[in-house]
Amino acid sequence: MSTPLRLGIAGLGTVGVGVVRIVRTHAEMLTARCGRPVEITAVSARDRSKDRGIGLSGYTWCDDPVALAVREDVDVFVELMGGSDGAAKQATEAALAAGKDVVTANKAMLALHGQALAEKAEARGRVIRFEAAVAGGIPVVKALTEGLAANRVTRVMGVMNGTCNYILTRMEKAGLTYEEAFAEADGLGYVEADPTLDIGGIDAGHKLALLSAVAFGARPDFDGIRLEGIDKVSIEDIHQAADMGFRIKLLGVSQRTARGLEQRMQPCLVPASSPLGQLEGGTNMVVIEGDAVEQIVLRGPGAGEGPTASAVMGDVCDLARGYRVPTFGQPADQLETVPAAKSSLPAPFYLRMTLKDKPGALAQIATILGASGISIDRMRQYGDSEPEAPVLIVTHKTTRDALDEALGSMAGTDVLVSTPVALRIEEV
Amino acid sequence: MSTPLRLGIAGLGTVGVGVVRIVRTHAEMLTARCGRPVEITAVSARDRSKDRGIGLSGYTWCDDPVALAVREDVDVFVELMGGSDGAAKQATEAALAAGKDVVTANKAMLALHGQALAEKAEARGRVIRFEAAVAGGIPVVKALTEGLAANRVTRVMGVMNGTCNYILTRMEKAGLTYEEAFAEADGLGYVEADPTLDIGGIDAGHKLALLSAVAFGARPDFDGIRLEGIDKVSIEDIHQAADMGFRIKLLGVSQRTARGLEQRMQPCLVPASSPLGQLEGGTNMVVIEGDAVEQIVLRGPGAGEGPTASAVMGDVCDLARGYRVPTFGQPADQLETVPAAKSSLPAPFYLRMTLKDKPGALAQIATILGASGISIDRMRQYGDSEPEAPVLIVTHKTTRDALDEALGSMAGTDVLVSTPVALRIEEV
Repeated sequence: MSTPLRLGIAGLGTVGVGVVRIVRTHAEMLTARCGRPVEITAVSARDRSKDRGIGLSGYTWCDDPVALAVREDVDVFVELMGGSDGAAKQATEAALAAGKDVVTANKAMLALHGQALAEKAEARGRVIRFEAAVAGGIPVVKALTEGLAANRVTRVMGVMNGTCNYILTRMEKAGLTYEEAFAEADGLGYVEADPTLDIGGIDAGHKLALLSAVAFGARPDFDGIRLEGIDKVSIEDIHQAADMGFRIKLLGVSQRTARGLEQRMQPCLVPASSPLGQLEGGTNMVVIEGDAVEQIVLRGPGAGEGPTASAVMGDVCDLARGYRVPTFGQPADQLETVPAAKSSLPAPFYLRMTLKDKPGALAQIATILGASGISIDRMRQYGDSEPEAPVLIVTHKTTRDALDEALGSMAGTDVLVSTPVALRIEEV
Repeated sequence: MSTPLRLGIAGLGTVGVGVVRIVRTHAEMLTARCGRPVEITAVSARDRSKDRGIGLSGYTWCDDPVALAVREDVDVFVELMGGSDGAAKQATEAALAAGKDVVTANKAMLALHGQALAEKAEARGRVIRFEAAVAGGIPVVKALTEGLAANRVTRVMGVMNGTCNYILTRMEKAGLTYEEAFAEADGLGYVEADPTLDIGGIDAGHKLALLSAVAFGARPDFDGIRLEGIDKVSIEDIHQAADMGFRIKLLGVSQRTARGLEQRMQPCLVPASSPLGQLEGGTNMVVIEGDAVEQIVLRGPGAGEGPTASAVMGDVCDLARGYRVPTFGQPADQLETVPAAKSSLPAPFYLRMTLKDKPGALAQIATILGASGISIDRMRQYGDSEPEAPVLIVTHKTTRDALDEALGSMAGTDVLVSTPVALRIEEV
């Protein structure tokens, strides 16, 4: 077992540099823990001349990540380039075809192509490990596929996009509008080049698709997620929610139902006193509910050099020790194809709308809700901005389908000033 | 890989029954996840005739756990009898000598004899797995030894005794005295037959010794723990702490310092708003701080049939998959013998004492603290129970050694009505 495990690293951004740093500074510790040395033999990145604050002269430089991925002196291809397709996918496929294991932080690639890639890996007796792709430094994939392997998972939930949580936290704490908080996050470099990845919930949705796969033994199904971003959440909603003891979070929830797999990534109200409600800023949290373990909550940094590199290296250590859990916890060809059940599980909903201040408007809304079988828990008209009347409604448990029907009927009336905000109240 | 993994289970209390239940109800899922069936071949317990609510006729019954441990048709000896010595240790040694892997929930046995047992296991190429021994259903041993294996851990903290946390929570929420809360917990069956195991911090100390070993690559050293129970915490302390924004928890802390390994298990003040401060009842929490990952918080049920059986079965699944992490994360003969540094790390302290209400009493206390190099952050005299004066002092950062010196000097004066309460304020 003293043969070194040799890494080829493609992508030398923040995370790649973090991985190089750990391998160098912790060489002795890694050898002791893994029973063999972990070494880097080759690296690849777009710009060879860039100063990354670390010396790379000891490693073979490859301009082409595909060439790196298939090198004889590479045992594990560490893919840290990002992007769902293009070079990352090409190099990953090349590495698998050449019989390498792959460690990646690439949530988009796996959420969209994970099934095919896992099958490719397993055909060669190899695995793809992706702890760093979900919830940063939190070892949640390991918890689900190994530590909690004897549980039938009943629900998994996560706040997994630090940028969204930062924006929502700043809106509440500093009273900023969504636009102001977004501009602040953007100025701090927290927002992706394409902001819709963050605020549209896509990045978090990719993570949820991967979590669902390992939690439920199902093929990753990103398209099956009901996806809503945070850009329609207003400071008004945050204040109204707080008044009732709730916080608004971009929450991913995945649940197996009689109708299939229900995956949602959307702004939700959660109790302010719950662990999810208390989460602030860029910290991530994943809640796992299983039939034996009841509820486990995992909390940690969702991004950054150290935490993400820690997750990449956790996977590398497993491979150095010779542990090869199948990519999604069980062989890819045994993963179930579970139909998407987008809106079957009932919950209370928060509704905020502005009505024209005219007689009978509120009665009309109440009648529409009743016609869709939705009963009202509380309703109040507030503010004094005639001729408009802001109205807040909390429903009893209902399905999203029933709610959408009611919202459709409301749109056909002439009493709404603008489209109602409808947020699920998740029981956590 | 379709050869079944065969378990021999010794001990059929709550946890043992939970393990049997999971193996029976989740057979298909376990086979899919582990790549092979998991089966029970033999069981052992004290009383064969007891009705445990599950049928055991399919398994060979052994009156003697040692006989079970060495059976040819047993691959993994699952030790759920408990007790640091006696039958549990004897059977574990027999299993290891016979070349079996061992899965156990026995914190006392491993805290006291883990080093010798791990060496025995490794001499035969086997391992002892003990996820269930620390923090119930939380997969924290796995997180430390595998997921976070590339981190140099800087501190690990845990609230790991549900009984103590229940008592402290009830004192605060219901205003009970320590005695009343203890009686309530006892009535609910939460307290061990020997209560000092719980309230004296011994049970939690055993867990801390194991956490320290895997976190720091050190030999388990239960005797090196500075151990204090919760029986001296009064309702008055809980209220005073709450007034200042703190909660009192029986908190285990393990830290590597220049002087050695500092392990403490004692009632501490933690910020009420921190994850540790918000923990209530029987829920456990472990906080791991590493040089790469920053901070990870793990929360979950600390006991009970399902959660503990979940942890046992997580270990079983690893063995079924052929993963054999060395017992303490790296080979036992490579674990360091780190000297115990019982009180080197400075912290602020909370002091509560009752002085005789006579001129100069408070000045005398302040002088003594000053003479030991301890400066006072805040001090107040409260209440109006002449001729006694209750006094509350929060110090600036100081060492426990300096504090003990000062407490010694105070004992030599004639102004104290009773022994002062001194609690560390842990920065979390």
